Amino acid sequence: MPGRATDPHPAKEIMSTQPSAPFDKPAEFHVYDTTLRDGAQQEGLRLSVQDKLQIAGYLDELGVDYIEGGWPGANPNDTAFFAAATSGELVLKNATLTAFGFTRRVGGKAADDPLTAALRDSGAGVACVVAKSHDQHVLRALRTTLQENLAMVTDTVAHLVAEGQRVFLDCEHFFDGFRENKAYATEVVRAATEAGAEVAVLCDTNGGMLPPWVGDIVAEVAETTGAKVGIHAHNDSGCAVANTMAAVDAGAMHVQGTINGYGERTGNADLLPVVANLELKYGWQLLPAGSLAEATRLSHAIAEVTNVPPSNRQPYVGLSSFAHKAGLHASAIKVDPNLYQHVDPALVGNDMRMLVSDMAGRANIQIKGEELGFDLSDRDLAAKITDKVKEREAAGYTYEGADASFELMLRAELDQLPEFFVARSWRVFTQSIHGHADDRHEVDTEATMRLEAGGSTIRVVGEGNGPVNALDHALRQALLPSYPAVERFELSDYRVRILDQGHGTDATIRVLIQTTDGLRSWTTVGVGQNVIEASWEALAEAYSYGLLHA
Amino acid sequence: MPGRATDPHPAKEIMSTQPSAPFDKPAEFHVYDTTLRDGAQQEGLRLSVQDKLQIAGYLDELGVDYIEGGWPGANPNDTAFFAAATSGELVLKNATLTAFGFTRRVGGKAADDPLTAALRDSGAGVACVVAKSHDQHVLRALRTTLQENLAMVTDTVAHLVAEGQRVFLDCEHFFDGFRENKAYATEVVRAATEAGAEVAVLCDTNGGMLPPWVGDIVAEVAETTGAKVGIHAHNDSGCAVANTMAAVDAGAMHVQGTINGYGERTGNADLLPVVANLELKYGWQLLPAGSLAEATRLSHAIAEVTNVPPSNRQPYVGLSSFAHKAGLHASAIKVDPNLYQHVDPALVGNDMRMLVSDMAGRANIQIKGEELGFDLSDRDLAAKITDKVKEREAAGYTYEGADASFELMLRAELDQLPEFFVARSWRVFTQSIHGHADDRHEVDTEATMRLEAGGSTIRVVGEGNGPVNALDHALRQALLPSYPAVERFELSDYRVRILDQGHGTDATIRVLIQTTDGLRSWTTVGVGQNVIEASWEALAEAYSYGLLHA
Repeated sequence: MPGRATDPHPAKEIMSTQPSAPFDKPAEFHVYDTTLRDGAQQEGLRLSVQDKLQIAGYLDELGVDYIEGGWPGANPNDTAFFAAATSGELVLKNATLTAFGFTRRVGGKAADDPLTAALRDSGAGVACVVAKSHDQHVLRALRTTLQENLAMVTDTVAHLVAEGQRVFLDCEHFFDGFRENKAYATEVVRAATEAGAEVAVLCDTNGGMLPPWVGDIVAEVAETTGAKVGIHAHNDSGCAVANTMAAVDAGAMHVQGTINGYGERTGNADLLPVVANLELKYGWQLLPAGSLAEATRLSHAIAEVTNVPPSNRQPYVGLSSFAHKAGLHASAIKVDPNLYQHVDPALVGNDMRMLVSDMAGRANIQIKGEELGFDLSDRDLAAKITDKVKEREAAGYTYEGADASFELMLRAELDQLPEFFVARSWRVFTQSIHGHADDRHEVDTEATMRLEAGGSTIRVVGEGNGPVNALDHALRQALLPSYPAVERFELSDYRVRILDQGHGTDATIRVLIQTTDGLRSWTTVGVGQNVIEASWEALAEAYSYGLLHA
Repeated sequence: MPGRATDPHPAKEIMSTQPSAPFDKPAEFHVYDTTLRDGAQQEGLRLSVQDKLQIAGYLDELGVDYIEGGWPGANPNDTAFFAAATSGELVLKNATLTAFGFTRRVGGKAADDPLTAALRDSGAGVACVVAKSHDQHVLRALRTTLQENLAMVTDTVAHLVAEGQRVFLDCEHFFDGFRENKAYATEVVRAATEAGAEVAVLCDTNGGMLPPWVGDIVAEVAETTGAKVGIHAHNDSGCAVANTMAAVDAGAMHVQGTINGYGERTGNADLLPVVANLELKYGWQLLPAGSLAEATRLSHAIAEVTNVPPSNRQPYVGLSSFAHKAGLHASAIKVDPNLYQHVDPALVGNDMRMLVSDMAGRANIQIKGEELGFDLSDRDLAAKITDKVKEREAAGYTYEGADASFELMLRAELDQLPEFFVARSWRVFTQSIHGHADDRHEVDTEATMRLEAGGSTIRVVGEGNGPVNALDHALRQALLPSYPAVERFELSDYRVRILDQGHGTDATIRVLIQTTDGLRSWTTVGVGQNVIEASWEALAEAYSYGLLHA
């Protein structure tokens, strides 16, 4: 055994992933976002003009270099977006707006092509033209000759450049094409750059590449053509981020991706992990100083607009991405958090979180209590709380995702929970006459409630677009005279899960409700045999917690 | 321009990702699943003994070589799982059950350590022992000397081997440790293999590595120690699959991962894409013949047990992974699907799907119609249906995820939709007296309904654990006399989304309901101002579609 291994090592701060970029950041490196165009190809994702403007604002705040806004002229939505964006509704501080479009039609002239004209006249600072670079796609999908496709590239790029437009070229199906016919794929890159395209973006359109394959091909193309090469990867092999990194390692100076990895099929390369890897592990400054620390917030803000629930497991920005559950780790994390995280979560605007769970030991509960400002150093007290957590979780509650309910439970155990109100009874009623789909009319839900608050008994009735909404309105109305703060409370998320899959009336139902007062959000949990009962419990706790911190 | 580029290329079948493994599959390659142990560390994921037995059955059906079942002796749940699994409740055809545990306690003896005894006596075919291999973790988290940690490895492995147990060693925090103190990390591998461990699994416990770094370290360790090396990766850099592939390229002969990438923080390496990449892109046979074609089914079956909604974008097995939306592609896909997919989806048990959407052209609708067995070759008819889809989607419907509602709409347009029933009215009522959380009692929901079916008017009342459940029970009861098939219908998923985020009572609500008859599943959509109204529409369509195909 080597001598060193027996020497005690002096304690020191560890940053376990020391930057080790293969080379310095190339000058004129581009971070190119295509959330609004290729991301919008995702199944179930639909963006209005207003959505696109809002997301473009977030992207600019993040500080990407280019925002691909869509395909002007191809559909009314994208055309309207460019019209709005270039007429003052979108003011970009960092990014250049980019318009996407195809090469001109087979057998035509770029100068006469209406879609080329739409690209030229979009008002965007850059046109990103997509061209076929796979010989079989030219011959069998486009149904033209290889020569005509090259002419389409040259003509379209040269026309746009002559008209004063900056041009990037997306080489569709490049990697598969390169394998089929290397000379032709390379010729497309050459034709584009000779005609004036600033970047030739190599696209793994079908997403089947693996990192070493991408690296080899990017290196060869960059070498043989001298072009500035970009990368556009999809995640079909589960390697979109790594393929993008491999392309950069091989000399690509332009990375395309989407926020949250949105995109067709398995999605595009998730741009935030790519940028975070390059900034935090290679030490390259790509975004404006301080912007990466906004990544978590902006990823979630964009998910609010797309209405696609974010994955808690997303690298860097996921709710769980720096969360620790194992009781075993909890005590060691107190020693040095950096022993257990690959980067400091604050660098991407995320937080380390300790999870309360039935797999947790006392150490987790103590750390969690301290986070909330309670002293649980007393072993017996911590053990009592831990037992209570285990008992409630066995009944179906979860405190991992419901910090607010955990605090209420903790305060109840510590006798530090004021009683803001007591509901004595409630009823909810929904009805439809002529309830057939083809003959519908308005359906209303009504909730009545008897409740004690501020020393008196109140009877209220609330209307809503469903039972929980009606209960929410009734409760708000009942509390408003005593607690004006409730006016700001708003339900921002509502999730239902059937536990123990009982397939019968004995199944337990768990409801999680997220509430916001415009400044902060909190999550509460309710459990019951009936979904309305469980919802009511989570709703009542949401108001109690909100009032506690109002 | 090279001559070849101008020659028309003879049409041929393209498989765009020709296998190109860096070398032949090594003998004795291990596919090692840790869904039941490391996967279960995921936030919000909790597995009962019964859940674990069921998942182990699915994993065995998939044909993995090793199933890590948990940590016997560490908690009652895992102890009970091993007791059940080894007493006949789990019969494995392919896989070897593996028990996880730590090296013996500091300063003790393996022969006297109760947790080592639990490992020895678990009845599992292999013990996977985890050891610290990062010097700072030994000194600061474990708080012992580097020498004692090596003794713990040697003693624990040697004791288990002497007792007839096969042993693998997980080297925790290996990659970060190797960077801090290469000699010590390497020494842990050497100590383990000298004591009889069959595999030294190098763990990127914090998940911060990138593929070239993993490749370099794996190659160096394999070279300097001669050990059989494994890889255990996490997804914190977004590269878990690629890191695993890089390790294999560098000589690792054992891959660890979890189904659906479950795991703490950002999750573990998703095992199915790793295996699919190695089988389909390297041409290695890893699972029993035919098993990979079960991947999609088994991934979803396991998600049913874990109750974690699967991501539609999961590589290979996601619902969207081979779905095409762009109208532009649709006509070309008719020519040759392989131009637009990296592998044949049937190889992983998935399907190519054409999505119906407002971004779709007539070609998509025609292909979709053909899939369902309708002739839409008439251009006017196809255009009329396309307009109808656009109009309905503008109102909030989505047919991308609701094929059953699309077929009903199509049949209605073609006048081929029988009217199975007409609901005239319904009412739903929920009440709670003493409705406070701390003083609850049973809360029931009741639905009444007036409906015409089989030529007569029927009045029914249904009870349920919430409004939709009560409506479902009432509808089932009303239809049962005329249509006995409804007895097999079961709601298997229910999703609600608020569209256009109106924050007011004018918001539109969309409900998706998935129904199964035990053999097949179908999804229907309902839209309305009231969640119960939208649910009712989706529910009524679910029954109509089920009866149509009963």
